Amino acid sequence: MERFSSISMAVVRRLPKYYRYLGELKKNDVKRVSSQELSRITGFTASQIRQDLNCFGGFGQQGYGYNVDDLHQNIGSILGLDKVYKTVIVGAGNLGQAIANYTFFAKSGFIPEALFDINPKLIGLRINDIKVYDVEELESFVRDNDIEIGIICTPKNQCQKVAETLARAGIKAIWNFAPSDITVSDDIIVENVHLSESLFTISYLLKEKEEVLKAKKL
Amino acid sequence: MERFSSISMAVVRRLPKYYRYLGELKKNDVKRVSSQELSRITGFTASQIRQDLNCFGGFGQQGYGYNVDDLHQNIGSILGLDKVYKTVIVGAGNLGQAIANYTFFAKSGFIPEALFDINPKLIGLRINDIKVYDVEELESFVRDNDIEIGIICTPKNQCQKVAETLARAGIKAIWNFAPSDITVSDDIIVENVHLSESLFTISYLLKEKEEVLKAKKL
Repeated sequence: MERFSSISMAVVRRLPKYYRYLGELKKNDVKRVSSQELSRITGFTASQIRQDLNCFGGFGQQGYGYNVDDLHQNIGSILGLDKVYKTVIVGAGNLGQAIANYTFFAKSGFIPEALFDINPKLIGLRINDIKVYDVEELESFVRDNDIEIGIICTPKNQCQKVAETLARAGIKAIWNFAPSDITVSDDIIVENVHLSESLFTISYLLKEKEEVLKAKKL
Repeated sequence: MERFSSISMAVVRRLPKYYRYLGELKKNDVKRVSSQELSRITGFTASQIRQDLNCFGGFGQQGYGYNVDDLHQNIGSILGLDKVYKTVIVGAGNLGQAIANYTFFAKSGFIPEALFDINPKLIGLRINDIKVYDVEELESFVRDNDIEIGIICTPKNQCQKVAETLARAGIKAIWNFAPSDITVSDDIIVENVHLSESLFTISYLLKEKEEVLKAKKL
């Protein structure tokens, strides 16, 4: 993916974390927070946090810290969460249905306009009131409805073909849940979800813990 | 979560990425790779990669780089992927079923022994040959079968209760897909999956791109 911004991807990937933690503080009625407190919650260093937020203009005040509501809203707007995005879900199996049913995404402004599948038993059904279409209609649907984000929930062996169809139709971004990376032209934003990375972190920590306990017993 | 290791979580979280990229190189029959090449593929700096791998003993040879097969196997073993883990999936809705059907996890050594749900229509069914039990049986099942990892796929309002049941039963790690963080005692490894972070990265990049295009036109 081609970018023309000086903001590094590492900073970009920390923003949703700040947004989530600030949302939790807000829910707990916390009104202001220092970069030191944010550091304790997020695990990033205070200077890292100040540096990250300075990329976008700062928002904090020396001796006061950050106003939680304002910072939450500002980061939301930096993340583009004050807008609405039209999406389609390709693959109406368990995962596609889970995402169609996950109302948090729609509440955050990512509106699924349609599901697509190759299975005649699924075509025509409605999942959370979102209609399942024949995947043959995917290209024209995306083009005619100005869909911006395609969510791929197909098996591994279908995802590249689907990605190419979405690309031909003019999709702007692809969120890929298929366990295989896809290749499309550089001007399309691709975000591959790798659930295995999170699972393998668990097995690492389990193993590390066992070793520490074993060493203690020796 | 309490840890007694000097390896930082940032390093731990990079390991599954190295493992995945090395797996791809292996699949493409690449035999050796330099830290510079790994840097180009992974986006981490070459010195970062060398430093990370040095935490575990290095593996590379000056002037040769890394043997792809060996490094893949070594990192797999550091990640604990040469072992088998018994898991249960709590919540047999779309997401729980998607995970039960996702054979990659079982192939990587994470074996789902049972699904649990409160819905009488689901109890007794078999998903990918894994039986769905009444969630009332969760505590005794986990205890009697030495289950190590609990995968929570329930709605938000059920996840804390399920986490406490798993904790009482002696679970070692929890992989939480419910869109709400859970709180259990420090000796249990908890990995919360936050799909929204990946989605919000897309909206950031979409917005950034639009702004860059707009600025170019001015």
